[in-house]
Amino acid sequence: MSSSFNKDYSDDFEVTPWKVEGSVDYARLIKKFGTQEITDEIVEKIESLTGELHPLLGNKFFFSHRDLDWILNKYENNEKFYLYTGRGPSGMVHLGHLMPWFLTKHFQDKFDSNLLFQITDDEKFLFGNKTMDEIKKNVYENILDIIAIGFKKKRTKIIVNTRHIKQLYSNSLEIAKRITFSTAKSIFGFTNSTNIGMIGFPPLQGVPCFLPTLIEGKPTPVLIPAAIDQDPYWRLTRDIAEKIGFYKPAQIHSKFLPSLQTTGKMSSSDPETALFTTDEPRIIEEKVSNAFTGGQPTTLLQRKLGGNPGICSVFSYLKYLFDTPRESNERELKCRSGNLLCGECKHDLSSHSIAFISIFQDRREKAKDLVSDFMYSEES
Amino acid sequence: MSSSFNKDYSDDFEVTPWKVEGSVDYARLIKKFGTQEITDEIVEKIESLTGELHPLLGNKFFFSHRDLDWILNKYENNEKFYLYTGRGPSGMVHLGHLMPWFLTKHFQDKFDSNLLFQITDDEKFLFGNKTMDEIKKNVYENILDIIAIGFKKKRTKIIVNTRHIKQLYSNSLEIAKRITFSTAKSIFGFTNSTNIGMIGFPPLQGVPCFLPTLIEGKPTPVLIPAAIDQDPYWRLTRDIAEKIGFYKPAQIHSKFLPSLQTTGKMSSSDPETALFTTDEPRIIEEKVSNAFTGGQPTTLLQRKLGGNPGICSVFSYLKYLFDTPRESNERELKCRSGNLLCGECKHDLSSHSIAFISIFQDRREKAKDLVSDFMYSEES
Repeated sequence: MSSSFNKDYSDDFEVTPWKVEGSVDYARLIKKFGTQEITDEIVEKIESLTGELHPLLGNKFFFSHRDLDWILNKYENNEKFYLYTGRGPSGMVHLGHLMPWFLTKHFQDKFDSNLLFQITDDEKFLFGNKTMDEIKKNVYENILDIIAIGFKKKRTKIIVNTRHIKQLYSNSLEIAKRITFSTAKSIFGFTNSTNIGMIGFPPLQGVPCFLPTLIEGKPTPVLIPAAIDQDPYWRLTRDIAEKIGFYKPAQIHSKFLPSLQTTGKMSSSDPETALFTTDEPRIIEEKVSNAFTGGQPTTLLQRKLGGNPGICSVFSYLKYLFDTPRESNERELKCRSGNLLCGECKHDLSSHSIAFISIFQDRREKAKDLVSDFMYSEES
Repeated sequence: MSSSFNKDYSDDFEVTPWKVEGSVDYARLIKKFGTQEITDEIVEKIESLTGELHPLLGNKFFFSHRDLDWILNKYENNEKFYLYTGRGPSGMVHLGHLMPWFLTKHFQDKFDSNLLFQITDDEKFLFGNKTMDEIKKNVYENILDIIAIGFKKKRTKIIVNTRHIKQLYSNSLEIAKRITFSTAKSIFGFTNSTNIGMIGFPPLQGVPCFLPTLIEGKPTPVLIPAAIDQDPYWRLTRDIAEKIGFYKPAQIHSKFLPSLQTTGKMSSSDPETALFTTDEPRIIEEKVSNAFTGGQPTTLLQRKLGGNPGICSVFSYLKYLFDTPRESNERELKCRSGNLLCGECKHDLSSHSIAFISIFQDRREKAKDLVSDFMYSEES
């Protein structure tokens, strides 16, 4: 495994676990990271195993994988897998964060999987400028979002790194011992000015790949649904898994929901770029109304030339979150032919988002009573 | 602080936290590390505060310090200090390990200090070739030695890193965030092939410098008695202490007991070089009988030319562990004048060591019932 993503790589986009910049060419990213494209054959297999086609697979929002075919074969041979995903609590949760969680919930329901959900509060302390107190507040708020997704209480355990470090630490040492600085540097781009906490952190994000085997007392496959920017962590984990007696974790990678303002992904640290699960309707309307679209400068030009859904954040949101494939195709045709104005799409996105987030906020409220039920055990 | 101890440093000895090689020039080491010599004035001050002169101060086995004068002034102004020392459980404990613990116990008694005793099992896993199971066995055995020293049960808490990681982790993140790879590299000599666990480890050895302030809820000075090879860890801690609102830890540094076989320090990993607290009398006799001395090749030459106590491991052991200053001076004179044969000194060392270790082994046995009393709390 010798992929790297140094800044001088000849692309006009950059994807690392901490930064997504530029207009991401997902086909090129697959080559760059050395992952596999999700083929129609795999989608059909999932459809046949689960009895339905999840929209985020149908519309190829999930587009890349590692060993997804392998883990489906395991499942067919009666070897059940765990799901593992996570959240870096750098701020509040926005709709972009929810996307991998939607598919994770779907898989939990259909494959009857246990789920480990890791919250990397230590990472966000080491890699950012927030105090631990600020991050602890985010952790609590983020947990409400996770629970609000509707994961099964009995099959879901949330791990908060600083809280469950004792349950993670010994295994993380086994991983850490097998990763040289040179390897970590080439994967994460560490430099002389990187703090040593950042350099020492990656093994902790690997541990939940191995916990299921330790919990079950037998080799247990793990599937990680996550946005593709997190792949480097688990690529590293895959490299050493078999050396320490575990299966390599399988992965299924999503694209990013674009920023509302420009290209790049939504970001917790820039609130204008994203719709948060805690936003009030007024704020949602305002953000959507200011969103970057593929429209023409004037109504007249729009009617005459048509818009460009390919670069339109509003179109992407509607496509991946709210439109059926048929609705999305119709919207695209109407936009390109000049028969749809940006205001209409913004109205659709705004009203869909307000309705969705309103329901989600009710679920977040109810989640407050469930937090302890979802926490991983602190017994060692 | 820009000291470094790269191998090409123009000395014929090397002292790092993991290796002591060559014949150590302690005066040069003070300059190299940037520490202070323990002056007669400081020794007299300790004598006046404690009411007696501890032999390991009188014979200058403890020879170097950082801020020892400062912490004594604090004590005189009614600000009590904690003691902190530790053990890397790479193997069984030998007499060389006990030396700093003797002074630590003396200080605990005289200054009525609380003591934190850290066992860095994670470090020894990351830096060596032992499995975690092997290291866990060492941890247990080493704890028996620590308790056998006679520390006060109510004033002593043993921290085992993997067991108490939750109590250490958040504070270690505060330290780790403030140390760049470049700084750690210059202090510890990390390279591209160093594993990332080793790079991430040093902050954990810093945490007990700050725990007393967190436990007491007010700024609390800490004095670390330890062999000087461990200084780099706390040098690093001192550099960032005030930035995160703590006193710099003070230190008092010992020399090393030499190897029985040659120059260099005793080593757990080479059993012939050291007398272990678990050695049987027969083994002690054998090791001492094979020890490296400053004697002449034949009795005749010894009688004629005299021996060289300056390079003699047997002389050092007797001087630092068993002889009074007067006895040691007499021994030196008799040796140099040819009136003492190596066999006589070996006999003295052997019988003293067997007697001491026999009593120590009884105390180790009794310690087995006290282990849980000495453990640091696992409550967070």
